[in-house]
Amino acid sequence: MINRSKAVDLLRNNNNFSILTHKSPDGDTLGSAYALCHILQDIGKNARVLVCGEMPKRYDYLRENIIENDFLEEYIVSVDIAADSLLGQLESYIGKINLCIDHHPSNTLTADNILIEGDSAATAEIIYELAKLLGVKITKDIAKCIFTGVTTDTGCFRFANTTAKTHRVAADMIDAGCDGTYINRVMFDTKSRSRLEIERMARETMKFFVDGQCAVIYTTLEMIEKANAIDDDMEGISSIPRQVEGVSVGITMREQEDGSYKVSVRTSDGVNASQICQKFDGGGHQGAAGCTVEGGLEEARAKLVAAAEEIIKNNK
Amino acid sequence: MINRSKAVDLLRNNNNFSILTHKSPDGDTLGSAYALCHILQDIGKNARVLVCGEMPKRYDYLRENIIENDFLEEYIVSVDIAADSLLGQLESYIGKINLCIDHHPSNTLTADNILIEGDSAATAEIIYELAKLLGVKITKDIAKCIFTGVTTDTGCFRFANTTAKTHRVAADMIDAGCDGTYINRVMFDTKSRSRLEIERMARETMKFFVDGQCAVIYTTLEMIEKANAIDDDMEGISSIPRQVEGVSVGITMREQEDGSYKVSVRTSDGVNASQICQKFDGGGHQGAAGCTVEGGLEEARAKLVAAAEEIIKNNK
Repeated sequence: MINRSKAVDLLRNNNNFSILTHKSPDGDTLGSAYALCHILQDIGKNARVLVCGEMPKRYDYLRENIIENDFLEEYIVSVDIAADSLLGQLESYIGKINLCIDHHPSNTLTADNILIEGDSAATAEIIYELAKLLGVKITKDIAKCIFTGVTTDTGCFRFANTTAKTHRVAADMIDAGCDGTYINRVMFDTKSRSRLEIERMARETMKFFVDGQCAVIYTTLEMIEKANAIDDDMEGISSIPRQVEGVSVGITMREQEDGSYKVSVRTSDGVNASQICQKFDGGGHQGAAGCTVEGGLEEARAKLVAAAEEIIKNNK
Repeated sequence: MINRSKAVDLLRNNNNFSILTHKSPDGDTLGSAYALCHILQDIGKNARVLVCGEMPKRYDYLRENIIENDFLEEYIVSVDIAADSLLGQLESYIGKINLCIDHHPSNTLTADNILIEGDSAATAEIIYELAKLLGVKITKDIAKCIFTGVTTDTGCFRFANTTAKTHRVAADMIDAGCDGTYINRVMFDTKSRSRLEIERMARETMKFFVDGQCAVIYTTLEMIEKANAIDDDMEGISSIPRQVEGVSVGITMREQEDGSYKVSVRTSDGVNASQICQKFDGGGHQGAAGCTVEGGLEEARAKLVAAAEEIIKNNK
């Protein structure tokens, strides 16, 4: 574990940076990567972003005004990547990462130097602190990347990880010229017709357990095909079951090609989502965690509900 | 029109305050009223809040630790009330208001002294500025009232009225001990089963017009009865149609007892919602406005779509 000033030294003393994102890239890993890329280019370094897998189209604006640098020898920085397994298609970089910057306290990534600030709502908050220490002026391009990381990882300043600092970072980014309204509209307030359709179908599967404290929804491959939904349309679906009054554990199950279910757990009222998912070798944060469960729908759901019930009861 | 320091003088030089909210009270009028009530009591004044109509139950926490003061002679302050017609059941106060504090630039309320700050996202932001000028310490009780006003009037920091200042006010309130996560969860992330049901039914009525740029949904009295929905369950329904990709005008029609439709218009991409509603003697902001339209469902919808089409085309 290193501190901020050591991380700043490493960024100052190297020249050719490849910045890696995690698989199924989200707003924080992408926003952090492109912000850091701009920052490094602004202090005269070569830098490029290696996106893991396909970048959802709605994030395209993050790449505006990025100059594509080409180089051989690389200094490798990971942003928001909490474990080797999250390198996905970039797995050839496992063990080769020089600097890891992240906000997940549970981080287990293999890297020469590790900067983790678990009290940051988003990795993008850490990138902002590094930019200040590097003396970089926050341009509009940097601002929109950092704002994107912060707003997406906090569900538009709604999740429990949001702090006073988060709001102040957002304020500084708006002052630096970022159009927060546009970004929030694209991220939270625009739904494709396919998305509306899959949401409607998922809502219809909702069942309640543990005296209404646990709600479960699911999607099948067939539903996704019918709605003509893509991966991108599925974002935010997992926040639906927990929204119901009285529900402290919301579970969303997504059927995978191999018949297993990819599971998202969202909790409130002090119930620990991570503890539920750990029972299935998954993990995450207090309020949001994930895992994969084998078995048919009914069996997998029963296992999940039993795990949720135990954690709910221990929480009393 | 008066300025802040004159408003502060009026608050300092009077003693018995009745603070009025607008009808169908929302988070900003209630949060502003209870914040101001705490502030005045904290500087030794008598103060009470007169809520117009019934206060939705989920706002109950705003009243915590309020001391009920009783007095005869009143100095009357209105918060977030933009017109005499919005006094509803408090209509006996029309013409008797001593100080009006509001953020609606279109304000037409009859009052002796009027403080309007149209660049504030919420009236609660103005109350915070007044508290600072009065030298009042922001207690946890004040903080949660102000945070509630700010977060509800900006749709959790998402609407176009959100500024850097809005985020800094939120940050200060969190620092003062307000639990923003709890408030946002209650305001935005908790839906009753009736709400889920009326939302599902309303979504099913969605129709598209003007090449997919205008979407309309409606609710009937019958639907509301079937879903067992109360007024409180209808909040946020009007944001649904505009959320669809490509839609710049989202219209929500709610059937009233007299057969007319109460209409909410939400817009984006520079289309002015207020201009659409003005055609039906309504009004509001650039991005959100309201009006009432007579006629059966089909006729009322056709009139609204025609008005929307005209404004969309003028906007090109």
